[in-house]
Amino acid sequence: MPGLERLHRRDTRLDSYVDRYAARAHGMTASAIRALFAVANRPEVVSLAGGMPNITDLPLDVIGSIIGDLVVENGRQAMQYSSGQGEQPMREAICEVMKLEGISAHPDDVTVTVGSQQGLDLVTRLFCDPGDVVICEAPSYVGALGVFRAFQCEVVHVAMDDYGLRPDALAEALVALHAAGKRLKFLYTIPNFHNPAGVSQTLERRTAILEVATRADLMVVEDNPYGLLGFDGEPVPAMRSLDDERVVYLGSFSKTFAPGFRVGWVLAPHAVREKLVLAQESATLCPPAFSQYAITAYLANYDWRGQIKVFREMYRERRDAMLAGLAEDMPAGMSWTVPGGGFFVWVTLPAGLDSQAMLPRAVTARVAYVPGTAFYADGFGSRHMRLSYCFPTPERIREGTRRLGEVLQYEAGVLETFGTAITDDGRAELRPYEAPGANQA
Amino acid sequence: MPGLERLHRRDTRLDSYVDRYAARAHGMTASAIRALFAVANRPEVVSLAGGMPNITDLPLDVIGSIIGDLVVENGRQAMQYSSGQGEQPMREAICEVMKLEGISAHPDDVTVTVGSQQGLDLVTRLFCDPGDVVICEAPSYVGALGVFRAFQCEVVHVAMDDYGLRPDALAEALVALHAAGKRLKFLYTIPNFHNPAGVSQTLERRTAILEVATRADLMVVEDNPYGLLGFDGEPVPAMRSLDDERVVYLGSFSKTFAPGFRVGWVLAPHAVREKLVLAQESATLCPPAFSQYAITAYLANYDWRGQIKVFREMYRERRDAMLAGLAEDMPAGMSWTVPGGGFFVWVTLPAGLDSQAMLPRAVTARVAYVPGTAFYADGFGSRHMRLSYCFPTPERIREGTRRLGEVLQYEAGVLETFGTAITDDGRAELRPYEAPGANQA
Repeated sequence: MPGLERLHRRDTRLDSYVDRYAARAHGMTASAIRALFAVANRPEVVSLAGGMPNITDLPLDVIGSIIGDLVVENGRQAMQYSSGQGEQPMREAICEVMKLEGISAHPDDVTVTVGSQQGLDLVTRLFCDPGDVVICEAPSYVGALGVFRAFQCEVVHVAMDDYGLRPDALAEALVALHAAGKRLKFLYTIPNFHNPAGVSQTLERRTAILEVATRADLMVVEDNPYGLLGFDGEPVPAMRSLDDERVVYLGSFSKTFAPGFRVGWVLAPHAVREKLVLAQESATLCPPAFSQYAITAYLANYDWRGQIKVFREMYRERRDAMLAGLAEDMPAGMSWTVPGGGFFVWVTLPAGLDSQAMLPRAVTARVAYVPGTAFYADGFGSRHMRLSYCFPTPERIREGTRRLGEVLQYEAGVLETFGTAITDDGRAELRPYEAPGANQA
Repeated sequence: MPGLERLHRRDTRLDSYVDRYAARAHGMTASAIRALFAVANRPEVVSLAGGMPNITDLPLDVIGSIIGDLVVENGRQAMQYSSGQGEQPMREAICEVMKLEGISAHPDDVTVTVGSQQGLDLVTRLFCDPGDVVICEAPSYVGALGVFRAFQCEVVHVAMDDYGLRPDALAEALVALHAAGKRLKFLYTIPNFHNPAGVSQTLERRTAILEVATRADLMVVEDNPYGLLGFDGEPVPAMRSLDDERVVYLGSFSKTFAPGFRVGWVLAPHAVREKLVLAQESATLCPPAFSQYAITAYLANYDWRGQIKVFREMYRERRDAMLAGLAEDMPAGMSWTVPGGGFFVWVTLPAGLDSQAMLPRAVTARVAYVPGTAFYADGFGSRHMRLSYCFPTPERIREGTRRLGEVLQYEAGVLETFGTAITDDGRAELRPYEAPGANQA
């Protein structure tokens, strides 16, 4: 069949597959800060960059014995294929967990996922064609922005304040997007202990956002990995508890138990749930049965509510260490949010400083953070950084803020002496929404 | 903001989300045979339909103690986030496993996935835009067809014979697709103990297929879940062992150990591997660390090669029971493949019988199978059925073929008495490839 050779491509490039990738793969490139984080993982660097939960308080003896018994007594089920939707006892236990945030749900409406990351991947896969718009907070979770990019969505950021997403900015954005003829698919929001902003929506704020969403018939994807890790009082009711038809809810055991099992879930209206299960079967056949059995056994045989309290107190101590360190070590002209739970503080630098440009110097000074630009789809964020207090000990956190303070003192001094080439427009700490085409009007 | 109400859609449909799904979701509908399989799972039905491995021979005491110890000794790593690529010790162990089929690979080129199903999902996500062509065997794995449909690929089936995919038919298809201006992305093939066809490619056949692929510069995705479950002699070298640049290899522990951990992998050329890791991070952040640690510990502390031999002998006995049952119970005019390993026999019915139409009657007679149409993207396959011998005991298999024989005797008798409305074109058991537009030439 001599005709075949005509089909042959030249094969001299480094990546001989480069002509073959799908359009969605072109956005998949390793970020420049990735290489830097390999350095940041060295033990001498205090990393305030990662979002890994600290699971050292988990009782390994007890869990080892629970899981060992599980294998002996029920291994043939636990090591077999699961259903695409996830095992019934797991979904029942998930409904119990969600009750703590005011959610009344039926196990039939829960789909188990490979962490809540996969929940968001499946929801986006189900709803988003290339070019569809997803509304996100400004800033938003870096992993969510990665999913939206992978499905070639257009992300529109909407401003937050100290109580989270601003309903007035959301309404304004919706009208502008509608006028621009955009295909809008959903609002993605993190109401509790926002990653990276560290702020939370009050109940009144949630109600107001849902009111805007209802008026515009906007679907809401509520991502809630940290909701049970609040430091003060009872959890605020989940958005899903206020509207069970409009809200698709993402949950996770990664922060309330442990991430290594990769068990998250989606709670969705029935019709959506049916399609989610089909999408899950296509993506993985089924989520890991073993992980589900292990977590179900842990929940049934251990005081998991007490364990969450232990986690909360541990994270509160770390949050306090970070806030004390920031107050003591930061130069003038900086501000930061005060998280009531979760893992993160969002820092705003004085005008003229660039968190991304200074990251290599910070790592040289043996402290790491994530530059704010990672949390925007549009290049904004260079005056911000995310600091996480979840993983290092309070002592290491204080050492970290000390080192960071020195780097920032130096940067601020350079700026004062030499000025900056950066044109700063004086925009506020949490970016206001800009209506598309506003300048042309 | 009164303008918002104008955006509101009518909300009176059963699925109020129906207008919002992405184009790719429109193909996601539950198949008609799904409801039937809920019935087929009743204990009184002999199911020759499922592809679940039989893991009753696994030593639960030993595994329980291995995994319990793992939690106590190394739980803080095993329950933490993994890297997106998967843990280094797991990838090293995977390379050891692949050596058994002649593959020499570096752990850096392995990406751990949530079962090999997710491996195929990620590869397809990386390479396929809507309308791109994937070449599959005729028939092909139902789960793979689901992935290709989810990414809106066009599937072109190429004929097999008793030695698997036919290189001449592949070459003919490539020329025709090229002439038709199609964007061709890869060949998806299962060289060992094909699901559903039950046949295997000889070494000569693999070489010939790769020669055609090389001449046309075609990427090959080799799916090999059953390769170590052969009943006769040594494994045939994997296609990947013959070409390490052209072949992307999918492996899995689901059949050689247990599926409930959902650990599979992709072995890919370096540039592709880099993008696979980014795709994995977007899809799940990382595959489950716990599953990887558990399997690594099992491989290190148990005679897993011996366990695979135990599995092989168990499946061989079941294969023998099925072949004996078919020989004894089937009416004249039927034929079937003789698998040298794996889980499946592919059955061809006499002209005029329809495996999909008769499935409800078979389930009423308390035996289930998968109709051949499930394994074609184009509606072909009604004269075929897949019978699996992996899960039921030999006694149940014999009972199943007896019941199936009675159903087929009855169907054949009806056909003889009344004839059939179905126009049968006398096409051979394994469908020959038809070049697009051949009739117009």
